[in-house]
Amino acid sequence: MTAYKAPLDDLRFALFDVLGAEKTLTGLRDGEAHSRDLLDAVLEEAGRLSEQLLAPTNGPADEEGCHFDKATQTVTTPKGFKEAFKQFAEGGWTGLTNPEAYGGQALPNVLGTATTEIFQSGNLAWSLYPLLSEGATHAMEMHGEEWQRERFMKPIVEGRWTGTMCLTEPQAGSDLGLLKTRAEPGDGNANGHTNYRITGTKIFISAGEHDLTENIVHLVLARLPDAPEGSRGISMFIVPKFKVNEDGSLGARNTVAAGAIEHKMGIHACSTCVINLDGAEGYLIGQPHKGLMAMFTMMNAARLSVGVQGLALAERALQNSLNYARERLQSRSLSGPKFRDKPADNLLVQPDVRRMLLTQRAFVEGSRALLLYTALQTDVEARAADEAARKAAGELVAFLIPIAKGVVTELAQESTKEALQIYGGHGYIAENGMEQFVRDARIITLYEGTTGIQAADLLGRKILQLQGVGFKHFLQEISTFCQQHAADEALRPFIAPLAVATKNWGDLTLKLAARAQANPEELGAAAVDYLYYSGYVALAYMWARSVAAAGAGAQSAAFKQAKHDTAKFYFARILPRCLTHQAAIEAGVDTLPAIV
Amino acid sequence: MTAYKAPLDDLRFALFDVLGAEKTLTGLRDGEAHSRDLLDAVLEEAGRLSEQLLAPTNGPADEEGCHFDKATQTVTTPKGFKEAFKQFAEGGWTGLTNPEAYGGQALPNVLGTATTEIFQSGNLAWSLYPLLSEGATHAMEMHGEEWQRERFMKPIVEGRWTGTMCLTEPQAGSDLGLLKTRAEPGDGNANGHTNYRITGTKIFISAGEHDLTENIVHLVLARLPDAPEGSRGISMFIVPKFKVNEDGSLGARNTVAAGAIEHKMGIHACSTCVINLDGAEGYLIGQPHKGLMAMFTMMNAARLSVGVQGLALAERALQNSLNYARERLQSRSLSGPKFRDKPADNLLVQPDVRRMLLTQRAFVEGSRALLLYTALQTDVEARAADEAARKAAGELVAFLIPIAKGVVTELAQESTKEALQIYGGHGYIAENGMEQFVRDARIITLYEGTTGIQAADLLGRKILQLQGVGFKHFLQEISTFCQQHAADEALRPFIAPLAVATKNWGDLTLKLAARAQANPEELGAAAVDYLYYSGYVALAYMWARSVAAAGAGAQSAAFKQAKHDTAKFYFARILPRCLTHQAAIEAGVDTLPAIV
Repeated sequence: MTAYKAPLDDLRFALFDVLGAEKTLTGLRDGEAHSRDLLDAVLEEAGRLSEQLLAPTNGPADEEGCHFDKATQTVTTPKGFKEAFKQFAEGGWTGLTNPEAYGGQALPNVLGTATTEIFQSGNLAWSLYPLLSEGATHAMEMHGEEWQRERFMKPIVEGRWTGTMCLTEPQAGSDLGLLKTRAEPGDGNANGHTNYRITGTKIFISAGEHDLTENIVHLVLARLPDAPEGSRGISMFIVPKFKVNEDGSLGARNTVAAGAIEHKMGIHACSTCVINLDGAEGYLIGQPHKGLMAMFTMMNAARLSVGVQGLALAERALQNSLNYARERLQSRSLSGPKFRDKPADNLLVQPDVRRMLLTQRAFVEGSRALLLYTALQTDVEARAADEAARKAAGELVAFLIPIAKGVVTELAQESTKEALQIYGGHGYIAENGMEQFVRDARIITLYEGTTGIQAADLLGRKILQLQGVGFKHFLQEISTFCQQHAADEALRPFIAPLAVATKNWGDLTLKLAARAQANPEELGAAAVDYLYYSGYVALAYMWARSVAAAGAGAQSAAFKQAKHDTAKFYFARILPRCLTHQAAIEAGVDTLPAIV
Repeated sequence: MTAYKAPLDDLRFALFDVLGAEKTLTGLRDGEAHSRDLLDAVLEEAGRLSEQLLAPTNGPADEEGCHFDKATQTVTTPKGFKEAFKQFAEGGWTGLTNPEAYGGQALPNVLGTATTEIFQSGNLAWSLYPLLSEGATHAMEMHGEEWQRERFMKPIVEGRWTGTMCLTEPQAGSDLGLLKTRAEPGDGNANGHTNYRITGTKIFISAGEHDLTENIVHLVLARLPDAPEGSRGISMFIVPKFKVNEDGSLGARNTVAAGAIEHKMGIHACSTCVINLDGAEGYLIGQPHKGLMAMFTMMNAARLSVGVQGLALAERALQNSLNYARERLQSRSLSGPKFRDKPADNLLVQPDVRRMLLTQRAFVEGSRALLLYTALQTDVEARAADEAARKAAGELVAFLIPIAKGVVTELAQESTKEALQIYGGHGYIAENGMEQFVRDARIITLYEGTTGIQAADLLGRKILQLQGVGFKHFLQEISTFCQQHAADEALRPFIAPLAVATKNWGDLTLKLAARAQANPEELGAAAVDYLYYSGYVALAYMWARSVAAAGAGAQSAAFKQAKHDTAKFYFARILPRCLTHQAAIEAGVDTLPAIV
């Protein structure tokens, strides 16, 4: 059983003090109402909901898991899930960031990201049901036709249905070009819209079948009969579990159904399904053979959310390991007893326990700033008045997403591992709840693109193919920040090493790009270490900004001191990891010879 | 379902080529018969047993788990465990390294360490039942009285009973000084031996109750009535599950029993018990209040074995991830298709996948050499003709055990994590077996002393208190090795960086010792990073020796090339981690300020 309290002070600090979100948001199109007060109220309500409704279900739902009934091909979710989803939908959370025209609240993405953290901390497995819907509605909004949005997206926004992303097949994981599911023209007459018959098997479909809503809208990647081979021959289809009549009422059961649910290391309460399509009726979204573009629309949003999952798990694990370190009495301080009236000192007197706590804090709060920063840029991309600003923000987002997903998820695994370690042997016992965070966190470096895929996206696509446009914006921004604060005494210990690391990042990138042009294998040999290097510099920037913001903020002295302490720790003991990654990057592909 | 094949070639290479074990062992007292041929035959037999009898049970037993019957306070182990234990005992494996006088085979510890790896790879949870016995027999051999050895140790050596170590209590984990279990004088007349009545509650007792043997001998830490407070007031007692008559037959049930078994993250098939003692009859081992010394006898052997657990899990995870990378077809090589007749290339063409495989190889094979090196020193310590050699070996062992336990277990977690990562999403699915390795591996940095405890032991006790006697032997040995191979062309890329890292290790140690004298908190602030630094240099030494051995050995060119490639990888991409740990060590306790 683990505690959870929504970290509202830290969320507010990151949003308003570090990132200046109020100023940015109220300056955007349709953003006049997005004041700090409004956002604050939403955060508080999300906190209440998560603490009361979701957080208590986390352990029990993991133990209960989902149950699949083979005869009816239905999934029963754990106790409390259905009621929680009902309240979540009634509160309007399912449409928080969707357009008002489709029943949404049209609130900023950065707010949605913050509330997603809160809900995912409450119960990650539960939060996957509404999360997958977000990608689906986003894809329909961007690529669908108006009737499709009305018929399939709106009910999801309203929380009456949910959505899925049906990509993976047994032989097609990271390489979607290998997928075999096929779509054949239907009778052409389904409510006046061109329909298709989809046949194939999808695996690893999160929330693919459940009892939370009356219908499920699958977005399915498949090949049309005339499709070119590989990833240029993939189209995307809407395939509802129940067919939908023109008036929006449910029709007959479609021939898409769960064949099994997976037994997994963690997120037991999320139904991860094998989905069989047997001539299921579906509708094309977007252009034929352009399904990957629509998929990436879903995927980018999903990747940011998976980064947030890492943050959410690490935050709750941190809270509990801090509580434990405070309460557990064991041994004495190296410099003599500190709790003389107790049989032993608490764990906080041990420098090594503080090292583990500060590691978690540095990752959690640094990651939060980075994720919210990225999310805020998505709002700028969507709604800035100035086209150049929208374009620049979009480029920045594209550059940051692989870092935010790739690095934050890896650091979250380290973070939850340290949290468990603080518990000693008690961390290994299921009832104490820490091991669930480690198990749950193990999926996040795998799904929505493994760490290797994120690294290849960052280095291969965002840096080399796109010639680092987003990277240049980010470097420029850090450089401006360093100049602005060059004379600030309190920031002196941070600005110089940040400037050095940033310059070095640019130099490394240029050298690596040259080597990759001579031999593309160099890209693969360096990518993951380059991803880490990038992540550590990005977090250093966030920590320097946090120190600057703490200096100017209205928080308590203790709050500000904690930010300063954690930043100091980060720069002294985490940022030097760049040295190792640089050595690995420079070592090149010669150090990774063939294995047969 | 995962495969396992005992890595006999690698074990032989480490034992005979890298470490020259045959020469060392046959030169020891009673070691004339310990030829390579004999050891080889034992390894082969262990491999056969593990592959056929244990390895197939690993997944099913994890799923089945242990079952506790509250009414009878008994534990049922998973299917196949009892039969496997019977065959194991009949084969003489339970007494492999014990003295012949008590029914053992008196074979070298280094051979026991190698076979323990093989059995633990087969099924870690199963192997914990005989493993705990080893510590118990060792403690009785070193500290017990003759009648105790005859009555309680011999049946364990013969595989008729097993043993446990009952240390931890709810309020006393890392800090055994807090333990409350009390021992009161008994009626003084139990078969003519002074007896005691032991009362208290022990937790986390591995193999504390099971159905594999007819009796269980608990070695229990408790306080006598006149005991001083803290760790200087702890005594050790033999407390059998069933009392034992003078003729060795079983008597009445003793009042020591399992109260529950824990639900854990992993090693589900090992019964981890709450053990309640309610005036249970027991016998003092060794001197009153000197129980910690006897405990450390058990603990040191157990710590080395837990290091081996890391190796064992990482070895099997590596084997499976390599198979998967070879067979899984996904995407194309960055430099163009390599498997033109297949729909995609295998994963081995990806440099990043090779990075993950080489990381595992570097850790697994480097750890194996380090663990066997340490085990061989325990044989020298026990049986060298020359007293100075015995003393030096003992000092080296004491120095190396916290490194071998602390670092190997941490690297094993990283290694199993990488193995799972290679599987992508399939690694998260229970049926594929990879996630079990990650779950099982999570205990090894916790039990028998957390990583923090190992680090404190290394830096606080072995370096500072004992003035680094073992460290000096090790530095001297590396230095001699570097000098001997200074002119060796093939070793050139390894000798210089090894010499630099080793010198730096010494310098860092001196500076740190000076700082710790001024402020003991500096010790805790640096300890874990110092542990890692030490481990990476120790593995570098093992890899340099492996390259030297491969140059002289009779193995195939491919085998030798693989050793060379892995060493190159290690020096280029892993050893630079020392840079980061050095920065953290030098950052000092100021970067770990108080947390309240």
